[in-house]
Amino acid sequence: MTPPLAERTEAPAVLARCRDLVRPALGRAVATLHPWHAEITAYSLGWEGPDGRAVPGAQGKGVRQALAVLGAEAVGAQAGSAVPGAVAVELIHTFSLLHDDIMDGDETRRQRATAWKAYGTGPAVLAGDALFALAVQTLAAAPGGSCAPAVRLLSGALGDLVRGQADDLLFESRPWTGPDAVRPQEYRLMAEHKTGALLGCAAGLGAVLGGAGRTETDALTAAGRHLGVAFQAVDDVLGIWGDPAVTGKPVHSDLRRGKKTYPVLAALTAGGPAAQRLGALLRSGEPLDDRAARQAAGLTEEAGGRAAAVAEADRNLERARACLESVTLAPDPLADLLALLPYFTARTL
Amino acid sequence: MTPPLAERTEAPAVLARCRDLVRPALGRAVATLHPWHAEITAYSLGWEGPDGRAVPGAQGKGVRQALAVLGAEAVGAQAGSAVPGAVAVELIHTFSLLHDDIMDGDETRRQRATAWKAYGTGPAVLAGDALFALAVQTLAAAPGGSCAPAVRLLSGALGDLVRGQADDLLFESRPWTGPDAVRPQEYRLMAEHKTGALLGCAAGLGAVLGGAGRTETDALTAAGRHLGVAFQAVDDVLGIWGDPAVTGKPVHSDLRRGKKTYPVLAALTAGGPAAQRLGALLRSGEPLDDRAARQAAGLTEEAGGRAAAVAEADRNLERARACLESVTLAPDPLADLLALLPYFTARTL
Repeated sequence: MTPPLAERTEAPAVLARCRDLVRPALGRAVATLHPWHAEITAYSLGWEGPDGRAVPGAQGKGVRQALAVLGAEAVGAQAGSAVPGAVAVELIHTFSLLHDDIMDGDETRRQRATAWKAYGTGPAVLAGDALFALAVQTLAAAPGGSCAPAVRLLSGALGDLVRGQADDLLFESRPWTGPDAVRPQEYRLMAEHKTGALLGCAAGLGAVLGGAGRTETDALTAAGRHLGVAFQAVDDVLGIWGDPAVTGKPVHSDLRRGKKTYPVLAALTAGGPAAQRLGALLRSGEPLDDRAARQAAGLTEEAGGRAAAVAEADRNLERARACLESVTLAPDPLADLLALLPYFTARTL
Repeated sequence: MTPPLAERTEAPAVLARCRDLVRPALGRAVATLHPWHAEITAYSLGWEGPDGRAVPGAQGKGVRQALAVLGAEAVGAQAGSAVPGAVAVELIHTFSLLHDDIMDGDETRRQRATAWKAYGTGPAVLAGDALFALAVQTLAAAPGGSCAPAVRLLSGALGDLVRGQADDLLFESRPWTGPDAVRPQEYRLMAEHKTGALLGCAAGLGAVLGGAGRTETDALTAAGRHLGVAFQAVDDVLGIWGDPAVTGKPVHSDLRRGKKTYPVLAALTAGGPAAQRLGALLRSGEPLDDRAARQAAGLTEEAGGRAAAVAEADRNLERARACLESVTLAPDPLADLLALLPYFTARTL
């Protein structure tokens, strides 16, 4: 089953191998949904209608399913044992995109209308609920005695996920400076919940379904959570300095929207003249125009916010690596996991 | 622990006993939520703020938690063993009200603004998601080996719940008459999914957590599902002929909104002149004014739709009773369950 190492050391090849392994089971799970929800899900997943063919550019990379598969392989199990967990985390990821786009008012994702724009808010809410239910059903039907710990892991991650999303929404109405300002440490915890919980759950589910003990499961889960924080820090850098042609978002988009992000929060707490001028610029709380957004991006960089975010990403990548190396894992899957790491920080920078 | 039979034969007393038993655990579960979600949940449950005191008239009756508690007692277990299941079904019920009110555009519930009107759509969606996650977490943390079958029961019910809600929404755009008209049998299945699944799950969870085997669990689950169909049929009768002072909705509200309900669907398939005139009245698909709604209500009654809905409710009540009597259950809790049955059909008629 396992191809030789030479064929599987690069991140894109690892991701493709895991996607190919999980895809049939994901398709079968989606086919059990109400036809309306199956259609909205196929749209959200970037599949073109009932033939299951992908829309170029509209599919996710599938990092969550890959972490689940590699988690199982890393603890010495067959890749197939992870499939219910891989399906569950992809369904939960799709659920969270469906609902988050409603809450954030985002109208496009991957160059297409978001599901609520295409199908309406009510149907998108309900389709998300259907995916949530299906994810739990999928894990609950997993063979063997791993159901209870697997469901515990998933439901704990779900609790963290909504907690992180709540904090992210509430941060919007908090001031940039002063005693009520969002502190970088609060932001880091939000990112760990919002982005890290599901990545950690993915890797941990692979381990649990692969029959691993607590030590390996905890190490893989912690690694995934660190990857989430790294991913979010890089996402924040891209939201300010990313190439619009790559991100699909306007230049400086997060600054224009007044969204709290790690680089700006780190810059504001850095002290010094650039931090003070940045604070004065943002204090009004009004959306920034082109000129002000460009100025804020420059001041954020000058105050060290961009470098701090990149350092935050690198630090968490190293922590993830340390978690993986703190336990004994099978060498080939470990190599695949390590090959995936840079993807979380270098993917589109 | 169990009070003597004389104290517990009436439905209100049975419901109050179960609410009192479950309330502390429900409060502890809600307290683990993000404070924002705990507040929205306390509002939705009709609790007044952090002291946990109820707003008069704004609380549900708690039939789901009662079915869970009585399910456990009926299979010979302590009431306390059902508490995680009772908490889970109340959380899921609250989740479904939060999301359904968004989808249906309902602005009031129990004489107060619905949560999405009071807190915004995004926060209400997210609070619902948080309750969903918490319900699964609660069951996953239940002691003993019952986690897997309990989660299977809950996630299956959740799948049915969203399927039923989807059909209910899609029925709105189907015609009243002709080959694409909604058939009473389709409507019955929708009601079983939308309303019956969670009631069945409640009773079944009580049995599972109480350590019952498949036969008792299936019988209690099936009884709950029939109760859901009965409940929905009566709800439909109230939506047309209910006293606005009791239902909190305008007279003939379902007819004005063009909502598909059992009495009208049954009337339309009954044949005869009243059914034909009713079909002609509804065929335009336009919302009905006062006069037309009154006329439609009269024609529905004349064609036998009201009687058919009442008969449907009674028939399902009898089926629920037959399910309960098909297995050997402890006599006192069985008496309590039987005492609850009329509540599902006679509560406000």
